[in-house]
Amino acid sequence: MKVGFIGLGHMGSGMAASLLKAGHELTVYNRTRTKMDPLVAQGAHPSASVSDACRGDVVMTMLADDSAVESVVFDTGGIIDSLGAGGIHISSSTVSVALSERLAEAHAEAGQRFVAAPVFGRPDAAAAAQIFVVAAGPPDAIEAARPLLSAIGKSTFIASEIPKIANLVKLSGNFLLASLIESLGEAIALVGKAGVDRRQYLDFLTSTLFDVPVYKAYGELIVEAKFEPAAFAAPLGYKDIRLAIAAAEGLRVPMPLANLLHQRFLTLLAHGGDKLDWSAIGQLAARDSGEVKV
Amino acid sequence: MKVGFIGLGHMGSGMAASLLKAGHELTVYNRTRTKMDPLVAQGAHPSASVSDACRGDVVMTMLADDSAVESVVFDTGGIIDSLGAGGIHISSSTVSVALSERLAEAHAEAGQRFVAAPVFGRPDAAAAAQIFVVAAGPPDAIEAARPLLSAIGKSTFIASEIPKIANLVKLSGNFLLASLIESLGEAIALVGKAGVDRRQYLDFLTSTLFDVPVYKAYGELIVEAKFEPAAFAAPLGYKDIRLAIAAAEGLRVPMPLANLLHQRFLTLLAHGGDKLDWSAIGQLAARDSGEVKV
Amino acid sequence: MKVGFIGLGHMGSGMAASLLKAGHELTVYNRTRTKMDPLVAQGAHPSASVSDACRGDVVMTMLADDSAVESVVFDTGGIIDSLGAGGIHISSSTVSVALSERLAEAHAEAGQRFVAAPVFGRPDAAAAAQIFVVAAGPPDAIEAARPLLSAIGKSTFIASEIPKIANLVKLSGNFLLASLIESLGEAIALVGKAGVDRRQYLDFLTSTLFDVPVYKAYGELIVEAKFEPAAFAAPLGYKDIRLAIAAAEGLRVPMPLANLLHQRFLTLLAHGGDKLDWSAIGQLAARDSGEVKV
Amino acid sequence: MKVGFIGLGHMGSGMAASLLKAGHELTVYNRTRTKMDPLVAQGAHPSASVSDACRGDVVMTMLADDSAVESVVFDTGGIIDSLGAGGIHISSSTVSVALSERLAEAHAEAGQRFVAAPVFGRPDAAAAAQIFVVAAGPPDAIEAARPLLSAIGKSTFIASEIPKIANLVKLSGNFLLASLIESLGEAIALVGKAGVDRRQYLDFLTSTLFDVPVYKAYGELIVEAKFEPAAFAAPLGYKDIRLAIAAAEGLRVPMPLANLLHQRFLTLLAHGGDKLDWSAIGQLAARDSGEVKV
Repeated sequence: MKVGFIGLGHMGSGMAASLLKAGHELTVYNRTRTKMDPLVAQGAHPSASVSDACRGDVVMTMLADDSAVESVVFDTGGIIDSLGAGGIHISSSTVSVALSERLAEAHAEAGQRFVAAPVFGRPDAAAAAQIFVVAAGPPDAIEAARPLLSAIGKSTFIASEIPKIANLVKLSGNFLLASLIESLGEAIALVGKAGVDRRQYLDFLTSTLFDVPVYKAYGELIVEAKFEPAAFAAPLGYKDIRLAIAAAEGLRVPMPLANLLHQRFLTLLAHGGDKLDWSAIGQLAARDSGEVKV
Repeated sequence: MKVGFIGLGHMGSGMAASLLKAGHELTVYNRTRTKMDPLVAQGAHPSASVSDACRGDVVMTMLADDSAVESVVFDTGGIIDSLGAGGIHISSSTVSVALSERLAEAHAEAGQRFVAAPVFGRPDAAAAAQIFVVAAGPPDAIEAARPLLSAIGKSTFIASEIPKIANLVKLSGNFLLASLIESLGEAIALVGKAGVDRRQYLDFLTSTLFDVPVYKAYGELIVEAKFEPAAFAAPLGYKDIRLAIAAAEGLRVPMPLANLLHQRFLTLLAHGGDKLDWSAIGQLAARDSGEVKV
Repeated sequence: MKVGFIGLGHMGSGMAASLLKAGHELTVYNRTRTKMDPLVAQGAHPSASVSDACRGDVVMTMLADDSAVESVVFDTGGIIDSLGAGGIHISSSTVSVALSERLAEAHAEAGQRFVAAPVFGRPDAAAAAQIFVVAAGPPDAIEAARPLLSAIGKSTFIASEIPKIANLVKLSGNFLLASLIESLGEAIALVGKAGVDRRQYLDFLTSTLFDVPVYKAYGELIVEAKFEPAAFAAPLGYKDIRLAIAAAEGLRVPMPLANLLHQRFLTLLAHGGDKLDWSAIGQLAARDSGEVKV
Repeated sequence: MKVGFIGLGHMGSGMAASLLKAGHELTVYNRTRTKMDPLVAQGAHPSASVSDACRGDVVMTMLADDSAVESVVFDTGGIIDSLGAGGIHISSSTVSVALSERLAEAHAEAGQRFVAAPVFGRPDAAAAAQIFVVAAGPPDAIEAARPLLSAIGKSTFIASEIPKIANLVKLSGNFLLASLIESLGEAIALVGKAGVDRRQYLDFLTSTLFDVPVYKAYGELIVEAKFEPAAFAAPLGYKDIRLAIAAAEGLRVPMPLANLLHQRFLTLLAHGGDKLDWSAIGQLAARDSGEVKV
């Protein structure tokens, strides 16, 4: 398939490479142009503008936040202006439910099709096509997009025919991960202050009840207090919790644990945590207990 | 080894059976005497009193709460009165850190040895010797107890030389499980109110990031709203969260998520939840959102 | 002074009447035109448009929310277009800190002056010129506005030279009031479930430690469960807590009690509380305790 | 009336002095005997033991906590052993609802009468007989105790015929005060970080909506960050919040704001706050915002 790919950050680069490996004809675009070089070396066409990346059947975007997506889509020469009739925009960015709804409407008005397809996974999983995709959109568009989604990830969950639902599921997943971090942080603070060896404790947990990579990975970061360099920076985690709360507001679903996480991220950022991994909220319980200075 | 076993509830019966299967000479005691029958049929000796169950090298207890343990240990004719010098009391009940400390002191004064060895797992895992044991106590006592601990569980984590630390670890584990339930409850309430199929959502989560039995089992109960019969009743879960908070108070470790769980259990019990499984707190988010009447 | 007044709701009508009584030459404007009649009867000039209300030295606005203010200020023929050079816009609406900042910038660019002057008080206090004003803006504009501020209220607190600070103070005040409601709600739920006469309890509190009108008024509403008609509707209270949290996010000040209030309002609205007075969050503790069905 | 008074701390000394001034024949007892001297100088009889202080019609106690009261009441030679048939024990200590219930039962069994009469007010108010009394007990005992209650305070609220209800009301009052402190702490942290003068802000609040001594006094302490010497020490405030939560558990009333206060006190104590006034929790919001090092 002829595909454009816009947004070559840590995640996007891996996803674009997966599309190439799967044999698709790929045109890439990134604002910082040097990030295109490795993909061009692998066979992608470089493009000089967003518009140029919209000449195929599909354009896929993987950008940092709502405002980056708004700019790429709605600016003059953006995707709305450039994608052909019936063309598909697959948006993998983690954005607000509200923006996803607006994108769906705008693409429909422009005679284009829209699929929201956010992903779960770290950059190394993206490079290995081992991420998990949550997709939502009109069945025909989903069907057309499926070979691409299969190429970038390990499995695809079709959440709904309404694109924004995929974004909601993505936000709920990040909420679950942040909850896991908070709960581990409190448990480790508790037993750690009692003198239990934190590493042995974690090893016990993750070899028994919680024998799953997410507990191992986040537990490891908390036990080691190793929050730099950030694989997923605290401001991004904070953004996602805020977007989850915004979605919960729209649906009128009170989420007290999400509110607690909001407070944790704000505390972390108030203490200079902008460069830290989001798992650093897992150290705030130990800080409140007087064991750790953050 | 000659072992007494006191407390033949859902968990205790399975653990006692495992000891029999491993070839130990077992004397059992239970207040409701008919519960001894199945074990006697498997080769255990019945005993007429706590005292009679204390004639071996080791007596193991698996009781409902602090007051049941206090009674069996400290009453006239109880374990303190009856167990021989050097005899070992292995306490597998989930009790307060404070009681565990008191037990350690009392047994030491009486020339006996004390091992705290609470366990993780449901009754079916206990019957299959697939539970996880957290043990703490003096090294010599742990060493002597090890064949028994190995017989009842899949693995044993030696947490400390101080018995109460094992109880703390157990309480922290139940806190982590209740946190998991709360987070799943909020996430399911959120996406469910948006129209996502709850079962498909759960299947997605538990086949990707959260591919581990505890998420599957508790997610299933929440999605099915199947809280009866209770595998682990809400009042017991509430008790454990209160004990975790009591331990946190002793150590001066603020645990806001534990406080939230406290509030959830109290709300559940205020609405007649005494007979429900503790995972029923996972439905309170949906109730607050107006979707579910509890 | 020649003054325009835009926004004749419950609060605005009283404030405008106070300006008339103080002898100012008043031109009024309201979208629903019949609301102007009583003021015209008292001597105000009716105006046909926002623009017409901007022909004096000062225009004062008292509108429902950010979007109403944005429309009146920024639309074609709005205040920015219509107010003369050096003219003063006094904004008494409870709006976001972010909008207040934007207003200050826009008026400055247009050669106009901006004073934020939100108020505390209920409609009957506005009618009696007994409200409290929090004002912020450039000293010269504050000085010029002072006779008007004195005319509408009992006292004026000059919070800063930066207009948005007055809005922040207003939001913090509503946060304090909502906190008071929540705390009274929990206390009344507690003693009420124990059988204490709620009214006598409230009378005791408000004749001793909490002998101040705000405790009496909100306590009365909770004790009587009289939440209709709403003097200040729940969606407005919710809006203000959200704006307080937004301001706290901007300043990086974690406010866990504000987060709790957020959860309370969302629960209330999820149960059809849109028409209720905001003090209805004071009944949620009793609801959670099983005593009240909401 | 012939009255014994046990417990001459800051509050008890003032209360005992008020009884003397009202003309009652007073016998005093305190473990640290020198504290009796000032009262003896005012005309009280010193007593050598708890028992000696129980020879009148009434014995009044004002002690630090549950365990002090238990000891004075239940120890050999304590009040139960010493007070005559029909004698009245008036307990003004802030104790648990559970202990109050136990006291009522024990006194009834011993043929004595029991009135719970906790008080609100600071030591200077106690010295001036300006405290507020909450009393509960059998009507005849209340009637008999009334002259004494009138002598020590400004007003008496008869909460119930069941003594423990007075203790519940007292705990609810301290919960309301701690809530007030928390809310002020968050509001001051918010506007303070924005650059508002904290004192002027407080003056505004307490001259308008919150024109009542408790807001002035606690606001002053927060604004001045003056938490030493403690008028009411943090561990006592923490104890009362825990007792309020214990009562709420017994009644099954979830109190999320009480849970938040629990977390705040625990954080304060984990950072060495034992000597500080309980209003120091009002500085934790500023600490979390990065403005204050605690």
